[in-house]
Amino acid sequence: MNAFTFVNPTRIEFGSGVSRRAAAVCQELGARHVLLISGMGSARRSGLLDAVEEGLRALGIPFTAHEGVRPNPVLGHVREGIAKARDCGADLVLAVGGGSVVDSAKAVAAGALADHDVWDFFEGGAPVRKALPLVAVLTLAATGSEMNGGSVVTREDTRNKTFFSSLHTHPRVSLLDPDLTLGLPWEQTANGLSDAFAHLLEPYLNTPLRRPIVQLELKEGLFRSLVDCGVRLKANPQDLEARGDFMWSATLALNGMTSAGAGPAPYPVHMVEHAISAVTDLAHGAGLSAIYAGWIRWRLEQPQAEDFAFHLERLGQKVFALPESCGVDAAVEALVAWYRQVGTPATLREAGVAESHFPEIAFLAARQARAWGMGAYTEVAVMEILELAH
Amino acid sequence: MNAFTFVNPTRIEFGSGVSRRAAAVCQELGARHVLLISGMGSARRSGLLDAVEEGLRALGIPFTAHEGVRPNPVLGHVREGIAKARDCGADLVLAVGGGSVVDSAKAVAAGALADHDVWDFFEGGAPVRKALPLVAVLTLAATGSEMNGGSVVTREDTRNKTFFSSLHTHPRVSLLDPDLTLGLPWEQTANGLSDAFAHLLEPYLNTPLRRPIVQLELKEGLFRSLVDCGVRLKANPQDLEARGDFMWSATLALNGMTSAGAGPAPYPVHMVEHAISAVTDLAHGAGLSAIYAGWIRWRLEQPQAEDFAFHLERLGQKVFALPESCGVDAAVEALVAWYRQVGTPATLREAGVAESHFPEIAFLAARQARAWGMGAYTEVAVMEILELAH
Repeated sequence: MNAFTFVNPTRIEFGSGVSRRAAAVCQELGARHVLLISGMGSARRSGLLDAVEEGLRALGIPFTAHEGVRPNPVLGHVREGIAKARDCGADLVLAVGGGSVVDSAKAVAAGALADHDVWDFFEGGAPVRKALPLVAVLTLAATGSEMNGGSVVTREDTRNKTFFSSLHTHPRVSLLDPDLTLGLPWEQTANGLSDAFAHLLEPYLNTPLRRPIVQLELKEGLFRSLVDCGVRLKANPQDLEARGDFMWSATLALNGMTSAGAGPAPYPVHMVEHAISAVTDLAHGAGLSAIYAGWIRWRLEQPQAEDFAFHLERLGQKVFALPESCGVDAAVEALVAWYRQVGTPATLREAGVAESHFPEIAFLAARQARAWGMGAYTEVAVMEILELAH
Repeated sequence: MNAFTFVNPTRIEFGSGVSRRAAAVCQELGARHVLLISGMGSARRSGLLDAVEEGLRALGIPFTAHEGVRPNPVLGHVREGIAKARDCGADLVLAVGGGSVVDSAKAVAAGALADHDVWDFFEGGAPVRKALPLVAVLTLAATGSEMNGGSVVTREDTRNKTFFSSLHTHPRVSLLDPDLTLGLPWEQTANGLSDAFAHLLEPYLNTPLRRPIVQLELKEGLFRSLVDCGVRLKANPQDLEARGDFMWSATLALNGMTSAGAGPAPYPVHMVEHAISAVTDLAHGAGLSAIYAGWIRWRLEQPQAEDFAFHLERLGQKVFALPESCGVDAAVEALVAWYRQVGTPATLREAGVAESHFPEIAFLAARQARAWGMGAYTEVAVMEILELAH
């Protein structure tokens, strides 16, 4: 096991109806003015946002709304949120939405207290030294942002989609109410399953060691849980029990626990996907499932593929119940079959990404790879991956 | 999945040599006077305690020593620690030892700031409202105390061994240095494996629901990791990799993660074992393995045993690789076989507990059961369990 530091101070409150506690949690944290961040309108249409606002009014907590966070959230909207937070003197940020809303809220929470532009956290490595306290009401199981300090945002002019992470931007409290996910369009559920699965799969496959066994076991347990949730939810999207299992599994998939001690885990598939969704605005989860098989086939041809193949075959056995010595091809096929079963695209063609976008995607991904020191991901290499994923 | 709140603010630093950071962590937390709590001398003999003290001196942090915490720690020694903490004006408690030392340190940390006797936290339900910050240097993988808020202490005059738990008594930082466990007597390693296994096994078997699957999967992964560690360490007690896997697995086994959402989980085997070690001073882990099979046989004869039997059989399949429909007897036999393989007693006879102690053990356990509302555990019932475990 590698040396590690693990700390995750976020308090999770999970259960049907727990979203009604949003205002009470803000009060508990001493909020005097809340910046209330939300998305493109679904939380308004469902009545959730009205209920949250009503709760704040009932407790006499003033708030300023900042609506309109879009999927693949953008820097411009974050900057507007920071300006609003300063103008209204917000001392707490309340995010009501999915991962994009929570990610934006983190950037606003840190940016509001910074004496430089917020993008310096994303590029240039400015450390987050403080942030407004953040509370999240999660409406979508997918990104895990509700229990980590990471934020992914796209800068519009350069189409650079990248991230920062800090202990200061962990939500203080996240309210996980599976009721809120019952009415989701199936596509968002499928994308969420793909995203959560990918958060486990990249470090699972990219860890150079075949041990430590603890971390492999935990990841495999969460993989099986997600596969199980996908089957149950596909059969009945109103299965509240499965909604809850999925929500908590997605949180655990990226809260640091399964990776602690497993060594450095690069996220190249996320890196390439960020370029795809920056160019095409494809949903992140759909972009991940669309390129996974192609990336795996490319990766198997690269140097030092033995450990990678070992973990891939183990995935087939432990998660998709394939026999021992199933081989890597069978494991990839089982993964693709699960994507198809869930209903998330398994190729870029299925995702509707035209080949004409490939050069720009490759340019952006390779630029990011250079910034992160992942030299294997040249433009030529990314083009190969995209072709294999087509 | 049941509703739950999960929060675990402890920062874990894991790695070979990380215990050398003890003084630096105290400094980071702003300590001006440290109460340094340790056990019966092993940390002194190994040189660890000298190194920690030297580190504190080098950073100019005054400290007062409180040595002599014994296995199955006692209230009297805790009260002495509280008096010392007040006398020296300690503003941080540093625990160097195993679970007993960390548990004692928690009671001292809370008791030092209380305006009533510390035992009121254990009996009578006085809530912990604040505590001195606590740092732990763990020398033994077993109890999980390094990443939770629980403290188990025995009151000498009534032989009542019971616990409290609070968010305020989570260690702020726990240093997990597997190097420190390399020289342990085998017996302590075996007892630690038994203890960690039991922390998972009670809620695994006692959860009324056959779902949620997430929590079963996580527990099963940790079970397999512990079984694997037992086999590797028995073959080579100096296997540092296995020492590390075991240390982190034991921490994860009782940090709240695997139980969150699984519903209320009583700990009757721990309750009976606490009575055994209160009477006989048997090591906790040895007491647990000694009564497990007997308790399981008793429990199978009680009302509503179907879910219990379901989970027991699932344990056999998922952890001990038994075939489907293996039956409950085979599962118990596999558990006993693992205890024998590890070298921890599988019966009370093997543990050297004389039948003459049974009435007093039954009296104490039933008294605790009444206090905790576990009415099935009458004196007669506990006597039956002890006889079956003999």
